[in-house]
Amino acid sequence: MSRDQRFLILADGLFGPDSSKTANACIRYTPERVVGVIDATRAGRTASDVIGFGGDIPVVATLDEGLALQPNALLIGIAPAGGKLPAEWILLVARAIEHGLEIWSGLHTFIADVPELAALAAERGVVIRDLRRPPASLDVSRGRVRAIDATIVLTVGTDCNIGKMTTQLQILDALRARGIRTAFAATGQTGILIEGRGIAVDAVVADFIAGAAERLVLENAKDADLVLVEGQGSIIHPSYSGVTYGLMHGALPHAQVMCAQPTRKAINGCEWVKIPPLAEFIRLSELALAPLRPAPVIAVALNTFDLGEDAARRVVEETQRETGLPTTDPVRFDPAPIVDAIAALHAGRRRDAVPLGH
Amino acid sequence: MSRDQRFLILADGLFGPDSSKTANACIRYTPERVVGVIDATRAGRTASDVIGFGGDIPVVATLDEGLALQPNALLIGIAPAGGKLPAEWILLVARAIEHGLEIWSGLHTFIADVPELAALAAERGVVIRDLRRPPASLDVSRGRVRAIDATIVLTVGTDCNIGKMTTQLQILDALRARGIRTAFAATGQTGILIEGRGIAVDAVVADFIAGAAERLVLENAKDADLVLVEGQGSIIHPSYSGVTYGLMHGALPHAQVMCAQPTRKAINGCEWVKIPPLAEFIRLSELALAPLRPAPVIAVALNTFDLGEDAARRVVEETQRETGLPTTDPVRFDPAPIVDAIAALHAGRRRDAVPLGH
Repeated sequence: MSRDQRFLILADGLFGPDSSKTANACIRYTPERVVGVIDATRAGRTASDVIGFGGDIPVVATLDEGLALQPNALLIGIAPAGGKLPAEWILLVARAIEHGLEIWSGLHTFIADVPELAALAAERGVVIRDLRRPPASLDVSRGRVRAIDATIVLTVGTDCNIGKMTTQLQILDALRARGIRTAFAATGQTGILIEGRGIAVDAVVADFIAGAAERLVLENAKDADLVLVEGQGSIIHPSYSGVTYGLMHGALPHAQVMCAQPTRKAINGCEWVKIPPLAEFIRLSELALAPLRPAPVIAVALNTFDLGEDAARRVVEETQRETGLPTTDPVRFDPAPIVDAIAALHAGRRRDAVPLGH
Repeated sequence: MSRDQRFLILADGLFGPDSSKTANACIRYTPERVVGVIDATRAGRTASDVIGFGGDIPVVATLDEGLALQPNALLIGIAPAGGKLPAEWILLVARAIEHGLEIWSGLHTFIADVPELAALAAERGVVIRDLRRPPASLDVSRGRVRAIDATIVLTVGTDCNIGKMTTQLQILDALRARGIRTAFAATGQTGILIEGRGIAVDAVVADFIAGAAERLVLENAKDADLVLVEGQGSIIHPSYSGVTYGLMHGALPHAQVMCAQPTRKAINGCEWVKIPPLAEFIRLSELALAPLRPAPVIAVALNTFDLGEDAARRVVEETQRETGLPTTDPVRFDPAPIVDAIAALHAGRRRDAVPLGH
């Protein structure tokens, strides 16, 4: 995938720090690819005003205003529950195609499968990229990753949208700077958008979740000694736990990094599911992998965006004490504690791999 | 779905007690619907000879011989790993269609999606039933089953193909005979074939596993007070665990029945995954559901088909002692211990539901 897009991002009515995950990640990690955001409820402001980063990227009210910013691609930057395409967007996407914009989407409903949009795109010679479309042929997982030497680290979390992708992206450069050939294995539409490759494990046929994770790890390990796998969902999420476990059992990590938001006490949107205390949750996550491959949680990544600076520092310290694990907010503070923990694990595995007598 | 089929079952090269799950279940539970089995390697024998039940149902070598038995439907009775359609079968299915036979299949590769077979079936006016095809529109799970009164019991197991469907089918009539309005919620292609309805949860898009389970429980609870949900896979299965957990978290059972095969010490086909001792496995299964809905394991169903009578009785007694739970082999021996445990749970929930002061 080339990365020379000039995205106009559709986030209508939902552009915000906690409600437009794909849009925000695109702006955070590849701001040079974003020319503007469509959200009529926030038009006239900037990305920085609305989500706290992204500088002067303007928010506009309509597609027409957005076209003046000379985009060459429309990115659908919000993902409604279930991923279905709202009917009112079809018209907007059609008009974007008529103006020659590539269409990028992470929705479960594939844009290229909407007959009128596919026909229009074909007619105009416009590319539609459905980031969640699975590879044509997947196999079931058989533990093939056990045959490779690379160190595999998976982020897991107490809930969705809590920092599993962000944590990996925040530590990637630091690990590379230490001379470790490190790959980021993207498992969701946003990670794929940023990384340029990956498999959306939540969009494959259920029997092939682990198989998709297995393939992804094997592919990433071809040119890396450390594979950072983007986690999905939560082992206690009533909607998405199947994806979470399938990913864990297909990726077979050597270690987990636990992501949590200290202020979140229940699953977002399913408040009847209370999040257990972090130390207990960590134990559950280790138990879930133990019969396949022991994978200790070696660090904690906290998401403190909704806390003041002092409260954030305090909760990092408290969590570190309670769990006995290196802890940080890798966006707000230095991600080094997580980087150190992973680098130490990797160095230890390298030492252990040296044949006896050498 | 009507149940007046006269099935010719394709099980070529694989008809056997442990290798043709769909064929065997169809023969065990609806033998009146089976006219013959195609397996060239066992031609001339009877079902009873080969799998131990099914009486005189003949095994034939070819489709042509099978046609002499006057079938009106071809059932693909074996499911290769990954569910893909072997190329050599396409020709056979095409010939069956030419002879006017309905095609029933539980494979992941949908017969109706093979263009030449679909065209041929349309031309001949033949129906193709892909048992695994998911409903057109699924939603994500949101714990909606918490709003219904029905008692929900899920079979779980240490591995695939160990008795999760069979156990439910063996206890269904006994529970009904006790006056409990009981439904069987089929979650796999074989259960759907027998029951006539259901959703193959392993064939839905990964994000919708729990949503499919939720829908299935809600539909079955409309005319039942007790819903027996067919379990899938195993929480430690490296290929299929995502389906297992998604089903658990979508169905939200009040209790689990644990299925195990005493002689099986590792996951079939993935022998590197050892099956923990049963008491420990039971604890893992309870922990996996506890944050969403506490669901104790209330009985154990052993599959002792590969043991002698005495050894089978011994292992039932030992397991009962080790786990402290009612235990039986519900096929070989009286399923009453499991039936009693479920009936007691259901009666207890009914009593608890009586408003205070009444």
